[in-house]
Amino acid sequence: MARIVVALGGNALQRKGNASAADQKAVARETAAKLTAVVSQGHQLVIVHGNGPQVGNILLGQHAIDSESVPAMPLDTCGAMSQGAIGYWLQQALNDEFQRNNLSNQAVAIITQTVVDENDPKFLNPDKPIGPFYESESEAINTSDGQNYIFHEDSGRGWRRVVASPSPVEIVETKAIKVLTDAGVTLIVAGGGGIPVIKQDDGTHQGIEAVIDKDLSAALIAELVGADQFIILTTVSAVMLGFGTSEQKSLEIVSSGDIAGYIAEGQFEAGSMLPKVQAAQRFVKHSGNNAVIGELSEVEAIVAGEAGTTITP
Amino acid sequence: MARIVVALGGNALQRKGNASAADQKAVARETAAKLTAVVSQGHQLVIVHGNGPQVGNILLGQHAIDSESVPAMPLDTCGAMSQGAIGYWLQQALNDEFQRNNLSNQAVAIITQTVVDENDPKFLNPDKPIGPFYESESEAINTSDGQNYIFHEDSGRGWRRVVASPSPVEIVETKAIKVLTDAGVTLIVAGGGGIPVIKQDDGTHQGIEAVIDKDLSAALIAELVGADQFIILTTVSAVMLGFGTSEQKSLEIVSSGDIAGYIAEGQFEAGSMLPKVQAAQRFVKHSGNNAVIGELSEVEAIVAGEAGTTITP
Repeated sequence: MARIVVALGGNALQRKGNASAADQKAVARETAAKLTAVVSQGHQLVIVHGNGPQVGNILLGQHAIDSESVPAMPLDTCGAMSQGAIGYWLQQALNDEFQRNNLSNQAVAIITQTVVDENDPKFLNPDKPIGPFYESESEAINTSDGQNYIFHEDSGRGWRRVVASPSPVEIVETKAIKVLTDAGVTLIVAGGGGIPVIKQDDGTHQGIEAVIDKDLSAALIAELVGADQFIILTTVSAVMLGFGTSEQKSLEIVSSGDIAGYIAEGQFEAGSMLPKVQAAQRFVKHSGNNAVIGELSEVEAIVAGEAGTTITP
Repeated sequence: MARIVVALGGNALQRKGNASAADQKAVARETAAKLTAVVSQGHQLVIVHGNGPQVGNILLGQHAIDSESVPAMPLDTCGAMSQGAIGYWLQQALNDEFQRNNLSNQAVAIITQTVVDENDPKFLNPDKPIGPFYESESEAINTSDGQNYIFHEDSGRGWRRVVASPSPVEIVETKAIKVLTDAGVTLIVAGGGGIPVIKQDDGTHQGIEAVIDKDLSAALIAELVGADQFIILTTVSAVMLGFGTSEQKSLEIVSSGDIAGYIAEGQFEAGSMLPKVQAAQRFVKHSGNNAVIGELSEVEAIVAGEAGTTITP
């Protein structure tokens, strides 16, 4: 029996253009069925999920009603809201699948705060677009209520607020996470990478306007629960060299050192495969165990060592 | 050392008309300071909170952006979102207070589903107003997107959707709750009474459009964690007889049997003190332990048996 941390990409939660709760619950049920096949084999799962489209839609709703009597919630609170919604869908789907398969396991989502460093260099160059589109920078600034938001033009689609994506440093709820994983609970944790908070001089925490890469947070979670394996699930079945060229080639097993070389060559796209490979590398380096990057539909084969790209120490 | 379940009313989370995240975080910090005084004495707290104003504002945002590309989330998912937001505020405030007081405790919120009976008689007579106001019943029906919603005129302020408030029957995440409470975690659970779900014939769960009284869910939680004491915190320092009359009289200690008599006399207002008294009664009857109804500011004195109305078996 292995303890496995799984990072779920957006496709495990939502089909493009189908953002209704009913559609997202249906996708969560399909995802839960695939993950339950792994649990049936006696493995323990700890699940970290993304929240991009969901928190985006929450922000649109909050922006639409923003007024003195119904003030829009800031990004940290919207992230917490997305942890609630997605956690609910996943834990309901998993618990139902467990029951259908006569498994005594129980899934539960916990609200999770991830500490980032307020001196993280990423804060100097915010580049993650969030929330509504505006026709011009001045319109965007006018509606931003005196806050020092930064707006960038987004691929010809309009102006959009950008926030930083600092690295995860520490998980506030570490004790509760250890209690639950040691008790064999199927934990859903650090949704969307966790709610970004900074630690103040007196040791207390404050939410900040940022987003955290969920794969990097999942690597941190994998370290702290002592995972035997860390699996990043995405829409491609393997990490590729020469991606999109005629020389495209899948990697089956690759050492962390070789991956470092490929990163230096610029083989992996920023904001896409690069952060996944970096998250895998981080776990492999700190734990001495393997990480695998592969496709959700093949998760059983990945756990059996028969699919995906395995990154070794 | 006692294990105490505390039900927090709306005033522990928000000051009337101050619904910004910053304001609500500030109230959560004041609440956390009062609860930490109890934790400092070696007691363990399990916290259930309301979500009325918060889920109301979430519904307004969802309603405002409802479209094919950004569909409004239904009430169960909005409830989950409110558990995320309020859970985040409370657990951050509590963990910060614990640290300030050199306590090693940790607070964490879990997403919680509460099973209700789909044959609960309350479904025949929905009476809890939620979401936006409409000028007329026909306007309300026109914007309800073909769903069989029921609308009532709400105190001259317009038409509003009403949903049922069925009784809580079972908590889905019972195992995880026991693991966390047995490990001494300060648990935040069943926010807003829990996300209402029904159990289908095959044993799986489905979210429904309803609200659950948080005090009744808190009584259920108090039973299942084996609480030594159940405290319902509200805006009045005691349960009153002849409330609002010249004969108004506070109750200090009252037996469950005497409370039943007062209920039969119609002493307690429906939708206000009545459900609190009933929740207290439920816990006292099932556990053989005491329940107390009192004011948040007096929580330390309540735990010491020096304030509030104590209901005995």
